[in-house]
Amino acid sequence: AVYVANVGGGMLQHQTAIASSLADRLSLLPAAAETIENGPASGSSAVKNGLLAIASGYYDTILVVGGEKMHEVASQCATDFVSSMTHPQAEYPYGITMPALGGMFARLYMEKYGVTREHLHAVTLKNHAMGALNPYAHFKKPLNDKDIFDGPQALVNNPILADPLRLYDLCPTSDGAAALVLSTVDIAKKMGRPYIVIAGFGQATDTHTLAERADPTELKAVTLAAQKAFAMANLKPSDIHVAELHDAFTILEIAESERIGFFKEGEGGDAAINGQTRLGGQIPINVSGGLKARGHPMGATGVAQIVDIVWQLRHELPENRQVKNAEIGLTINFGGFANNVLCFILRRAEA
Amino acid sequence: AVYVANVGGGMLQHQTAIASSLADRLSLLPAAAETIENGPASGSSAVKNGLLAIASGYYDTILVVGGEKMHEVASQCATDFVSSMTHPQAEYPYGITMPALGGMFARLYMEKYGVTREHLHAVTLKNHAMGALNPYAHFKKPLNDKDIFDGPQALVNNPILADPLRLYDLCPTSDGAAALVLSTVDIAKKMGRPYIVIAGFGQATDTHTLAERADPTELKAVTLAAQKAFAMANLKPSDIHVAELHDAFTILEIAESERIGFFKEGEGGDAAINGQTRLGGQIPINVSGGLKARGHPMGATGVAQIVDIVWQLRHELPENRQVKNAEIGLTINFGGFANNVLCFILRRAEA
Repeated sequence: AVYVANVGGGMLQHQTAIASSLADRLSLLPAAAETIENGPASGSSAVKNGLLAIASGYYDTILVVGGEKMHEVASQCATDFVSSMTHPQAEYPYGITMPALGGMFARLYMEKYGVTREHLHAVTLKNHAMGALNPYAHFKKPLNDKDIFDGPQALVNNPILADPLRLYDLCPTSDGAAALVLSTVDIAKKMGRPYIVIAGFGQATDTHTLAERADPTELKAVTLAAQKAFAMANLKPSDIHVAELHDAFTILEIAESERIGFFKEGEGGDAAINGQTRLGGQIPINVSGGLKARGHPMGATGVAQIVDIVWQLRHELPENRQVKNAEIGLTINFGGFANNVLCFILRRAEA
Repeated sequence: AVYVANVGGGMLQHQTAIASSLADRLSLLPAAAETIENGPASGSSAVKNGLLAIASGYYDTILVVGGEKMHEVASQCATDFVSSMTHPQAEYPYGITMPALGGMFARLYMEKYGVTREHLHAVTLKNHAMGALNPYAHFKKPLNDKDIFDGPQALVNNPILADPLRLYDLCPTSDGAAALVLSTVDIAKKMGRPYIVIAGFGQATDTHTLAERADPTELKAVTLAAQKAFAMANLKPSDIHVAELHDAFTILEIAESERIGFFKEGEGGDAAINGQTRLGGQIPINVSGGLKARGHPMGATGVAQIVDIVWQLRHELPENRQVKNAEIGLTINFGGFANNVLCFILRRAEA
């Protein structure tokens, strides 16, 4: 079977039922095919449905493909397209875009926990530095111009887009695709090399509108999804060696790192500045460059996160990107503004 | 969990990630939620993914909802929207719409098997007659004007839309929704009344373009999907008591009734005229009114087909719509023009 993750085929390319056409294009007929859409978490949802389909015993091998073409439309159109996941009465008509939600969330988080621009900069610098080493990244240039962050030209080079978030706090709109093959452990073992097991999975929804949450900084769905995944895997946050988090905005990487339990509440920002989330640090986060630098082609992102963790756990990456001896990895993928969150925990197994 | 089937939320209502918002609106938070898109077979694909998710043991209860709002856009826009599932280079730029494909398919079928307009009329009359009895049908008026079919005003009252198909050979563009709850047999048994088991399921894809098929009349994906479903259920076509087929065009009901094996190749048209597919006949087809009269709100259709069969197998319908003592039913749902077909076989079980 073929599971495809995509959001904008109909809206941006005027093409629906793309899973059927992909099965044909790849000469996989008469394989079953469907498209799974869950906003920016579409990729994770496709992997989840593939996982459960294999666990049911009905299929033994499933190709999961995630993809999105966003760059071919003007950036205003791309922002409007992405805003189609906001609430159609309570948010969208008031000009609420995803960056607007990100800005309001960032302000709340800063006020509650004392997060500063320096904390956000640390995430930007780390993820651009890692993206520069990733041949599949959208942005392959490290940001080494201090002026972007606090020099006299800072507001020119790094303009405010959704106060307090600036240009380099936001992920780009990207074109991209990612793919992986899911199969049973029996089939994986026959490949004769280390294989990667989905040890834990969790998913949780939260209110559609950010305004309806008692405390929007809580990111309840992140906490719940991660708790479910840890419970299934019988693991705890300190067992994780490498993580790909949903850094659509720099503030989110910091907030998620706390909600998952890598750091205590309010300590994620300092951890980023102190290098605890860098390669070689306590828990390397977004070694791929993350959504910030690898890019965020919506349907592809969740699949790409898992592919990046698989490469880490297979120890296949060059030394300057490989987390040494990584055995266990985690992903967090958002649908909407944390209103539908999926968490996977992957584990390396020897053949 | 909540599985939502929908195609046009983004294109027609500028709303994506609707599964998350539905989980919220129904106060089902933090239930997992995703949208499944497979063109006009989205509903069946959502049921299929729900089925496999429950079979995996991960969930025990899943709400499956299918819905579409097509009527609020102009009919040209609706046709263009539906045409987004044609091939973007080989079909769409040449003006190929779904009705155009239906017309060419009908012509081929007529020439190969001697199907006439009278055969098509029989399907139209039957499905409109049944729709008139269905409170949930889009068209609730029987067609009793003979003039529509062969009188002097026939071409005025029933104009040619895609030769040889006329207005009353095509399903409408509809608004509508359908929902069902999937659960384990253990839970179903506790409800204390007859429950319906998914006894068989099959799915198959075919070439994206109709032109690439050696013989487009074959509907290979229908044959394959039905064969798989019969094999899983350990049943044969003559075991089926009631069927909901994908009559987006009248010719398709005839063709499918042959490919499934209800009738021999080339005999489906005569069977329709002879009343073999009517209520009380050998195999009642589209007692709901089918896509033709119940309507075809794309995401809803596959779910609605299964809901209609469930009502039949529970013996809950009024006498003028109930297939007496129906124990086993079948559905066929098309994604695209028979390029991604799903077949379900349902069986009544006593609590």
